[in-house]
Amino acid sequence: MSIITKAALLKGPYDIELVEKELVCREDEVIVKNHLIGICGSDKNMYRGLMPPKTSEFRQDPKYPFELGHESGGTIVEVGGKVTDYKVGDKVMAFGWNNNYAEYFKSKTWQLQPVPDGLDLDIASLGEPVACAMHSGLNSGTQLGDTVVIMGGGFAGQIIAQCVKKKGAFKVIVVDVLDGKLQLAKKLGADITINSKKENVKDIIDELTKGVGADVVIEAAGTQESLNMASDIIKHNGKFVFYSWITQPVTLNISRWHDDGIEFINTCLVHHTWHHRYVWTFDALKPVQLGLIDIKSLITHQFKLDDIKAGFELADKDDAAIKVIFRP
Amino acid sequence: MSIITKAALLKGPYDIELVEKELVCREDEVIVKNHLIGICGSDKNMYRGLMPPKTSEFRQDPKYPFELGHESGGTIVEVGGKVTDYKVGDKVMAFGWNNNYAEYFKSKTWQLQPVPDGLDLDIASLGEPVACAMHSGLNSGTQLGDTVVIMGGGFAGQIIAQCVKKKGAFKVIVVDVLDGKLQLAKKLGADITINSKKENVKDIIDELTKGVGADVVIEAAGTQESLNMASDIIKHNGKFVFYSWITQPVTLNISRWHDDGIEFINTCLVHHTWHHRYVWTFDALKPVQLGLIDIKSLITHQFKLDDIKAGFELADKDDAAIKVIFRP
Amino acid sequence: MSIITKAALLKGPYDIELVEKELVCREDEVIVKNHLIGICGSDKNMYRGLMPPKTSEFRQDPKYPFELGHESGGTIVEVGGKVTDYKVGDKVMAFGWNNNYAEYFKSKTWQLQPVPDGLDLDIASLGEPVACAMHSGLNSGTQLGDTVVIMGGGFAGQIIAQCVKKKGAFKVIVVDVLDGKLQLAKKLGADITINSKKENVKDIIDELTKGVGADVVIEAAGTQESLNMASDIIKHNGKFVFYSWITQPVTLNISRWHDDGIEFINTCLVHHTWHHRYVWTFDALKPVQLGLIDIKSLITHQFKLDDIKAGFELADKDDAAIKVIFRP
Amino acid sequence: MSIITKAALLKGPYDIELVEKELVCREDEVIVKNHLIGICGSDKNMYRGLMPPKTSEFRQDPKYPFELGHESGGTIVEVGGKVTDYKVGDKVMAFGWNNNYAEYFKSKTWQLQPVPDGLDLDIASLGEPVACAMHSGLNSGTQLGDTVVIMGGGFAGQIIAQCVKKKGAFKVIVVDVLDGKLQLAKKLGADITINSKKENVKDIIDELTKGVGADVVIEAAGTQESLNMASDIIKHNGKFVFYSWITQPVTLNISRWHDDGIEFINTCLVHHTWHHRYVWTFDALKPVQLGLIDIKSLITHQFKLDDIKAGFELADKDDAAIKVIFRP
Repeated sequence: MSIITKAALLKGPYDIELVEKELVCREDEVIVKNHLIGICGSDKNMYRGLMPPKTSEFRQDPKYPFELGHESGGTIVEVGGKVTDYKVGDKVMAFGWNNNYAEYFKSKTWQLQPVPDGLDLDIASLGEPVACAMHSGLNSGTQLGDTVVIMGGGFAGQIIAQCVKKKGAFKVIVVDVLDGKLQLAKKLGADITINSKKENVKDIIDELTKGVGADVVIEAAGTQESLNMASDIIKHNGKFVFYSWITQPVTLNISRWHDDGIEFINTCLVHHTWHHRYVWTFDALKPVQLGLIDIKSLITHQFKLDDIKAGFELADKDDAAIKVIFRP
Repeated sequence: MSIITKAALLKGPYDIELVEKELVCREDEVIVKNHLIGICGSDKNMYRGLMPPKTSEFRQDPKYPFELGHESGGTIVEVGGKVTDYKVGDKVMAFGWNNNYAEYFKSKTWQLQPVPDGLDLDIASLGEPVACAMHSGLNSGTQLGDTVVIMGGGFAGQIIAQCVKKKGAFKVIVVDVLDGKLQLAKKLGADITINSKKENVKDIIDELTKGVGADVVIEAAGTQESLNMASDIIKHNGKFVFYSWITQPVTLNISRWHDDGIEFINTCLVHHTWHHRYVWTFDALKPVQLGLIDIKSLITHQFKLDDIKAGFELADKDDAAIKVIFRP
Repeated sequence: MSIITKAALLKGPYDIELVEKELVCREDEVIVKNHLIGICGSDKNMYRGLMPPKTSEFRQDPKYPFELGHESGGTIVEVGGKVTDYKVGDKVMAFGWNNNYAEYFKSKTWQLQPVPDGLDLDIASLGEPVACAMHSGLNSGTQLGDTVVIMGGGFAGQIIAQCVKKKGAFKVIVVDVLDGKLQLAKKLGADITINSKKENVKDIIDELTKGVGADVVIEAAGTQESLNMASDIIKHNGKFVFYSWITQPVTLNISRWHDDGIEFINTCLVHHTWHHRYVWTFDALKPVQLGLIDIKSLITHQFKLDDIKAGFELADKDDAAIKVIFRP
Repeated sequence: MSIITKAALLKGPYDIELVEKELVCREDEVIVKNHLIGICGSDKNMYRGLMPPKTSEFRQDPKYPFELGHESGGTIVEVGGKVTDYKVGDKVMAFGWNNNYAEYFKSKTWQLQPVPDGLDLDIASLGEPVACAMHSGLNSGTQLGDTVVIMGGGFAGQIIAQCVKKKGAFKVIVVDVLDGKLQLAKKLGADITINSKKENVKDIIDELTKGVGADVVIEAAGTQESLNMASDIIKHNGKFVFYSWITQPVTLNISRWHDDGIEFINTCLVHHTWHHRYVWTFDALKPVQLGLIDIKSLITHQFKLDDIKAGFELADKDDAAIKVIFRP
C-alpha cells in the first residue's frame, strides 16, 4: 500500500518547502503518522548551508536537494508484510533520518523504538534528542558534590544541566551567549549562569572553585570558542565531556589536555550500533519517565507543519529559541 | 652538607652549557649521584626555543636561563636530617624537574621512587619516560586481536608498540616520517611500518582492515598532522589514545569524534598526584622488569655529560635518534 | 511447512533418548539443519538429575521430560513468512535452548547469529560456548605481565587459558583434579598446571609469586572448593573473575573479599539482553576467527547423534572428556 | 619524649578496661591528643569474642589481650624528629589501628590525614568510618532514577542511604531488623524502610518494581541472611555492592550471580595502599564538607572514656545504637 504525504524538501540554503510525495511501504518497513517534529541543530546547519560530511552508508548524500528531518514520533498506520515487532496503532519514537518533516514518514523497524510506558507523546516524539542529551548527562561522570559547567544552553544543554543537578552536582553553571537561554536555565534549576559575551568565564569559575577549576565540563555549544574555554576551566585531572558534533575544523589549544591529565568522556548515543542505541535509550529516558526532568518548558515555539518556512526562519534568526516544533 | 656539581644551563635557544653549582641538601631532600640522563622531547623543544606554558606551581618558570633536565636516576649520596624513606646507597628513579643534566641532582623525596628489584640501572635511570610510555600502552584499551596504529616512532612510540604487541595486538602498525625509526620499530616487532611522507596512511589502513579502520590509534608524534591522521583512520567506535603533550595550538577536523562515537583515552602517568604516580609506576614497569620489553635498543646515542653541547646538537639534527643519553 | 526430525528427550536422570517430532515453522521462525551439537556442563548436570532453577520466562520449565540441547549451529533450510534477516542457506550459530540435540531445530531469529566470515563450521557450531569463554578471558582484566590462575580445565577453562596467555599473561596456571585435562592445558600453552587433589595450590602460588598471590583468578570449575581456593590465592587488590554457573548453595569463606579489597568481574555473555549478546559475540569470536585460539583440539570425543545414549554415558563417566559432540 | 595515657585493653571477650601506658614518640611518629573515639562494628565483634583472621603484616595479632581502637581523630601534640608533613597543633584523622580508645595515641604519619578545611572535628574524628561509607555510596554505581536497597541501617548504611539519595536514587529502601534504625533512616531521607523480621522483603521490592527487582543493592549488614536476600532482590543485570567485612564462613545461594549477570562492585576504601586511601578519602569526604550528609544525628550515644565498660555494654546490648562514642 502507499500513502501520499506532504514532506519538507531543502532545495538549497535557506530554501525549504513542503512537497507532495508517495510513501510505498516495503515488506520490512512501517509508515508512521507523525505526532510532532522538532528542528535539530544539525537541521539548522543544513538550512544555513553547512552540510556535514557523508558518513554512514545508510544515510542519504549530504547534497541539495535534501529530504530533511529526523526528530519525531507518532503512531504506526501501516506495517510491511514481514514486520513482526510492530503493529498498526503502536506508538513509536524515530531514530533515523527519514524526511520526518512530514505528515507521514516511512522507516525500517530497526530505526524505531516503542514509546516507553506512560511517556507523554509530545516528549516521546522528541525521544531521540532527549535520550541523546540524557545519555550525556547520565554518563558525564558527575559525582555528588561536583561543580559542573555546561557550555551551551540549547535544548541539549538545558536537559544535561537538569540531569547533572539531579545527579547531585553541588553547583551547576550554564554558559551561553544569550540571556534568554540563561534565564531559562536558571528557572530550570541551574545555580549560576554566565553570559560569556559579557563576563569572564574563567575568572568566575576560578573564584567559585578557589582557583581549582570545574570538576566536570560538558561541551554542548559546538564552537571553537566553547571548546577552548572548556579546556581552560577544567580542574587538574577533571573531566571533559564531549557532546557536540563539530563539522568544521577548529583551532584548539590542547596543552592542558596532557599537562593536566584531563579525562575525556565522549557521550553520543546514536553513533554506535542500533543494538547499543536500543538498550541505552530506555536507560536514558527512565528519569524522564519518572518526571524528574522538565522537557515541556524547552518547547519554546510551535508551528503548523504547513508553516515550515516560518518555523525555520524563526529558528535561524532567534537563537534564543530552544526547541521549535511542528505539528502536522 | 653540600656538594659541588656540574649541571646544564639552557641560556637561550640552542645555547646550553655546563656550569658549576652548589647543591645544599635541606632536611627533607636527598642528593643523588646520577647514573645516566636522557633527553626528553620536551627538553628538545625548550632547546629549540619552544617553551611550554607554566603549569604546576612547584615547577620553575619556563624562562631562559632554564635549569634543564628530568630523565635520570642514580644512587643517593646524602639525605637530609628528616628523611626517613631513603638512605645513602639507595638506588632511585627521578620523577621531578631538578636540573638533572648534572653529576648530582637534589630532590624532594616524593619526587623519587626506589628502583624496582632487579631492574638494570641503565633502564631504571630512564624509569620516568619508560613508565610513562608503558602506562600508555598498558592502558590503551588494546584487546587481543586488535589492529593498533602508533603515530610516532620515537622513544615512547617504540615502547608502546612493543607493549601493545605483547598485549595481543594482531597487527601493530607504526607510522613515522623517518625510515630509521621505522626500521627499528620493525626490528622490535612491529608488523607494518608506514612512512607518512611517502605513503598514504589512510589507504593502507583501509586496505588492511577492509575499510573498517584501526581498532586503536595511539598518538605519540605530537603534531597537528598526526592528530588529524589519527582522527581519520580510527574505526567507527574505535579508541583514540592521547599521549603527546602538544603545547602549540593545532587546527583539527574533529567531525568524526562525535559522528563515529570515538572513545578517548588520555594516558599520562606523571600528570596526576604523586600518590597516583607512585602506585602506577610500579605497575607500568612490571613487564619491563620481567624482560618483556626491549629498552636497551632504544638508547641510540651516548655522550659524556661534558659533551652536552654535542649531544643536544645531535638530538636536534638527527631526528632518527631515539634516545640520546649522557653519562656523568 | 514442517519438518520431521529426531530430537533428544531427557525423560529423567540418566534417561535420554531420541524421539521423533515435527517442527512447524511459524512466521517469525526458521528451521536449521544441524551441523554439530555439543554437550554443555549444564546439560550434563540435568542428565545427572541436577535441575537449575527456572529463570528467564522464555525458557521451558526445568522439569522432566526436558527437551535438551542448545550448543549447535548449522544451515537454515526454512524461513517463516515474516523473516527478513535470514534466508535459506545462511549459516548460523544457535544462542537459544531449542532442543538442539536433533537433526533439525527451530528457532526465533533473535536467538541466532550469522556465522562470522571464514569461521570453520565445526567451530561456529560451538559458537555459543566458545564466545562465552572468550568473552570471559577478554574481559578478565588480565594485564601484560600478570600471573593468572584458571580454576578448571574444562572446555571454557582451556579457552580462557589460551586467551589470557595471548593477552600477555606472564604465567598462566591451570588448576584441575584430572591429569588429562592438565596435560591438554599444557599442550595448549599453559605455563604451569596443578592437580589440586595431589598438590597444595596455595603453596605453589605463594612460591611462584613470592607470597604476593595471583594477579587474576578466573573461576571456571564451579565447585565450592574451587571458589574457596580462588578466594585464598588472589593477591591483595587482585581480580576475582566469576565464570561458572553454580546452582546449589555453597559455603564460602569470604573474609578476604573485603579485607583484601578484591575486585570482582562477572563475565557472562548470554545473561544480558540479546542485543548485548549480539554485539559482544562478534567481538568475542574475533581472535578465534584470526586463528589465535585452538578450538579443534578441545573436541575430544565425537558421536553420531543416533548414539546419544553412549555420548552422554561417556560424558558422565569420563570427566577428562573436554567437549563431546554429536554429528547428525 | 613520652606521654602517659590511659588506653583500653581488651583482655578477653566482654572484658575491657582502661590501663595506663607510656607512649614513646619515635622519629617517624606523632602523638595525637584524641578528640573523640567511636566503636566500630569490628571492635564490637572482638569484644564479643569474634576475632578476625590476621591479615596485614603491620597489624597486631588478633589475640587477647588486644589493644583496641581505630576510629578517632584529634590534635597533634608531639612530632618525632624526622616528621616533616605534620607539626604540633595540626588536626588529624586516624587511619590505623593504634589503640585509639585512649586520651592519646601514637601513629606513623602515613596512617593519618589532615582534617579537610572546615570539617567539624566531631565529624573529622569519625573521618575513617565516614569516608569508608561515603566511598561505598559514591562508587555504588547508583544512577539518577534508580531504585536502591541498602541492607543494614547501621552507621555505614545510614550514610550510604543518604549518599545515594543525594546522587539521584528515585527510591531508597533501607532494610534492617530493628525499628529504631529504620525510623532514623526515614528521618534522614529514606523513602521506604523494611523490617525484614516482620515483612517479606522480596515481595515488597517486587511490588515496588513491578517484578523487575532493585537496580542496586548495597550490602552493609554483614550477615548470611542479608547476603542471600540481596542476591534475591537485585534485578537482572543489576548491581551488587559489597561493603561488609564478613569474617565467618557463610552459605550462599549464588545461582543468580551468573544466571542474571549481576555486576559486582566491591567498595572498601582502606583496604588498598595508603596512597590510594589518601587520595580517595578527600574525595569521599567532599560531600560531607559541603554539608550534604547528616553525620551528627548518627552519634546516638556519648560516654566519657572512663566509662568505656558501660559504653561497650550498651553497644553490645542495644543494637539500635548507631554510633557510640567516647570523649576523653
